[in-house]
Amino acid sequence: MASSLQTIGSLLWSISVHEEWASSPSEDLHLDLRGPRLRDGLMEALRDAIRSGRLAPGAKLPSSRTLGADLGIARNTVAQAYAELVAEGWLTARQGAATRVASRAESVPATAVPKPAQNRRQVHDLRPGQPDLSSFPRADWLKAARRALTDAPGDAFGYGGPFGRPELRTALAAYLARTRGVRAHPDQIMVCAGTSHSLEILAEVLKQRGMPEVAVESYGLYVHREYLAGAGLRTPRLPVDADGAVVDHLDDLPGAGAALLTPSHQFPTGVALHPDRRAAVVDWARRTGGLVLEDDYDGEFRYDRSPVGAVQGLDPEHVAYLGTTSKALAPGLRLGWLVLPPRIARAAAEVKGEHDSYTGVLDQLTMATFITSGAYDRHIRAMRLHYRRRRDQLVAALAEHAPNTRVTGLSAGLQVLVDVPPGEESAVVQGSAWQGLAVHGLGMFRHPDAPADRDALVIGYGTPSASAWSGALEALCRVLP
Amino acid sequence: MASSLQTIGSLLWSISVHEEWASSPSEDLHLDLRGPRLRDGLMEALRDAIRSGRLAPGAKLPSSRTLGADLGIARNTVAQAYAELVAEGWLTARQGAATRVASRAESVPATAVPKPAQNRRQVHDLRPGQPDLSSFPRADWLKAARRALTDAPGDAFGYGGPFGRPELRTALAAYLARTRGVRAHPDQIMVCAGTSHSLEILAEVLKQRGMPEVAVESYGLYVHREYLAGAGLRTPRLPVDADGAVVDHLDDLPGAGAALLTPSHQFPTGVALHPDRRAAVVDWARRTGGLVLEDDYDGEFRYDRSPVGAVQGLDPEHVAYLGTTSKALAPGLRLGWLVLPPRIARAAAEVKGEHDSYTGVLDQLTMATFITSGAYDRHIRAMRLHYRRRRDQLVAALAEHAPNTRVTGLSAGLQVLVDVPPGEESAVVQGSAWQGLAVHGLGMFRHPDAPADRDALVIGYGTPSASAWSGALEALCRVLP
Repeated sequence: MASSLQTIGSLLWSISVHEEWASSPSEDLHLDLRGPRLRDGLMEALRDAIRSGRLAPGAKLPSSRTLGADLGIARNTVAQAYAELVAEGWLTARQGAATRVASRAESVPATAVPKPAQNRRQVHDLRPGQPDLSSFPRADWLKAARRALTDAPGDAFGYGGPFGRPELRTALAAYLARTRGVRAHPDQIMVCAGTSHSLEILAEVLKQRGMPEVAVESYGLYVHREYLAGAGLRTPRLPVDADGAVVDHLDDLPGAGAALLTPSHQFPTGVALHPDRRAAVVDWARRTGGLVLEDDYDGEFRYDRSPVGAVQGLDPEHVAYLGTTSKALAPGLRLGWLVLPPRIARAAAEVKGEHDSYTGVLDQLTMATFITSGAYDRHIRAMRLHYRRRRDQLVAALAEHAPNTRVTGLSAGLQVLVDVPPGEESAVVQGSAWQGLAVHGLGMFRHPDAPADRDALVIGYGTPSASAWSGALEALCRVLP
Repeated sequence: MASSLQTIGSLLWSISVHEEWASSPSEDLHLDLRGPRLRDGLMEALRDAIRSGRLAPGAKLPSSRTLGADLGIARNTVAQAYAELVAEGWLTARQGAATRVASRAESVPATAVPKPAQNRRQVHDLRPGQPDLSSFPRADWLKAARRALTDAPGDAFGYGGPFGRPELRTALAAYLARTRGVRAHPDQIMVCAGTSHSLEILAEVLKQRGMPEVAVESYGLYVHREYLAGAGLRTPRLPVDADGAVVDHLDDLPGAGAALLTPSHQFPTGVALHPDRRAAVVDWARRTGGLVLEDDYDGEFRYDRSPVGAVQGLDPEHVAYLGTTSKALAPGLRLGWLVLPPRIARAAAEVKGEHDSYTGVLDQLTMATFITSGAYDRHIRAMRLHYRRRRDQLVAALAEHAPNTRVTGLSAGLQVLVDVPPGEESAVVQGSAWQGLAVHGLGMFRHPDAPADRDALVIGYGTPSASAWSGALEALCRVLP
């Protein structure tokens, strides 16, 4: 018993200098030792002692009167602490018998969480898919958040419906009509946690409608194919040429109920879908009852003329439009939207569930204010200039240091294709990694069934921060053959 | 051609008074008509005319020179608008021939999205599961957001890893240790979009580990059973009595690899899991290699003494702890956390995916600051007082108006059980609905295999806003038999 007492006494002292208390400026330590915090501190000391094995399973504890007297604290405080720890299962107490350390509360050594192997540290990053995060408009976003939170009705903080906040859907309907030629009533717009979430929902809808296949472009993000495959859908490919996806091939895919396309700016080859093909794919959808899934991931960023409008505007009944803030603002926001053909809107809502379990309401409200206040337009304009300047610097640097290199996909987006000599793609990617420059080869984005007939790097010039940009550019020029 | 011209001319005029322009105070309308907005306006007018059928498929458009002269605008502006619309597929242009309306751009009537049937309008809401949303600490949250966004490193805005932001995980490790007796290294904590997201992840992990069953409590949320069933798991039941879940029954369920419990406050019956059963369920997990899923959905709200610590603290290797902000702050935040036994942490990360596709980073950073600044503690304390006052008012009102009614589950949480005479539960729920009071009967939360041996209402006293509370209380007293 004496040893238990000593253990507890020394632990109580250690509590008094514990960071947790010391860092709580509003509370007087002396008062703590008389108030409920003393009981909590005693409890934590006892838990620690049991965990570490200093108080062994089955060990008898001093009576609350004895311990209280020895520690100079109220007996009742000790009794409360004991009672709590009995309730939590650390101690046992039986009528008329001493309080003991519970038998199963044996010491469990802390186990570290195994970590994945670290990649070689990359100094420069020119992989595509991420905007310049250092440009996130913090002050404007906070301003919008302040207004949005102040104006929000109380019920906005509750479980949201599957379509998302009406404030954001109304703002999006106007914004998308104005900037992307999208035709949508707010009722057709579903707020999602980004394009991957949108694709998950659409994949499930297609599956439920008995459509076993979604045609995808020969080049694209493998995670998109994975989301579709995750719902049990097959993803046959459409070739991609200088006019974008070869949509005529849809006629050779009788099982395809939908086609996932990046019409405004094919990812990652950078070509725009030819007008005739825009018409042809809408015709296909009308003829077959199919659905075009239009991934407009960076529709805002076109440099040499204003953005090409969305295919959705041609036929809102046959095109589902997928938008996101991941390129225009930040991927960490996890905010995107689906413009749904009315005929599948209810089905999509049922897939998403009665409540939206994922998309936080505060960012939705803030985004609505961000759009309606004009801050989003201003940000897009500023970023368009920013990225165009980078693109021009990239082209100039390549022209100087690697004059025979073919660079394509320049007119829009956040990445270009830089051709390398046939057969050298993976050697260049690997050599770059050794020199601390992270780049992706075109092969990383190739459909498994597509022929490997082109060797190129996909250079994402949005990724580096402002301060890292020129260094990354120099590193690229060094590694090119 | 004259008719095309007239159509376009009148539409151009209508643009000039269009809400979109009028509501843009920073831009002068006159300047608009000379700048790129004129081109955009002309494009939108042409799209509108094509959509509505005023410009029919195949119709020839005036040359850009003619239209420019007639409208008094630069020929180049018209030519640009035509070129864009050709690129978008609305118009066709062939070398040397007139620009025409594309043939497939036929008018598509706008279809309304079908709406689900509306429920009868409820004036009062005493359903459980939602906190008082009018108490969301808007000012303190904004303050935390300001600090968090100002301090955030640039890369915080990128795609996050599966575990979530380290700032929040570090803050949670200290907070949960202090307030809930949870033992966790930040590496074990995974930020999720709420309890449903956490359950989805755990269900998938269990499935992958070949555990076909998760035992659940006889009373609980059907959506939780659904999430488990969605991963293909069976959900046999554990009876619930006055000491909480009867965990001894786990020995009768040899297929159960895990047990989902609400130990601190059984939902919705309101009892705490007895200390012996806490010990017993940990013993079961150790003996069988099973997993306890501890849903600590409202662990902070205990009124008559300090909260019972988490079972997780007894054995972090065998208990996965699920926490959420849905009750303490707001469900709309979509923010929760999983404290994972180290042995399943990697598997959970792989299920969640390389990136977190759901949980927005801004709220994570804000929550971290909200916790470390002490604002979360202050909010919890204030809400605990607020809800205790409501609970006392509820008990007092029932004692006065329905003195023979048994009320249980009082010591914690945001709901109580109000017994009604046997066989009358659904009649009372229905009668309440007719009188504009939304309540749920206990049957709503009963496992499909559990015997219907108790009739009661589950009264959520957190739900009404401050102004709606007394009216809701009166309505409840009116409907009770």
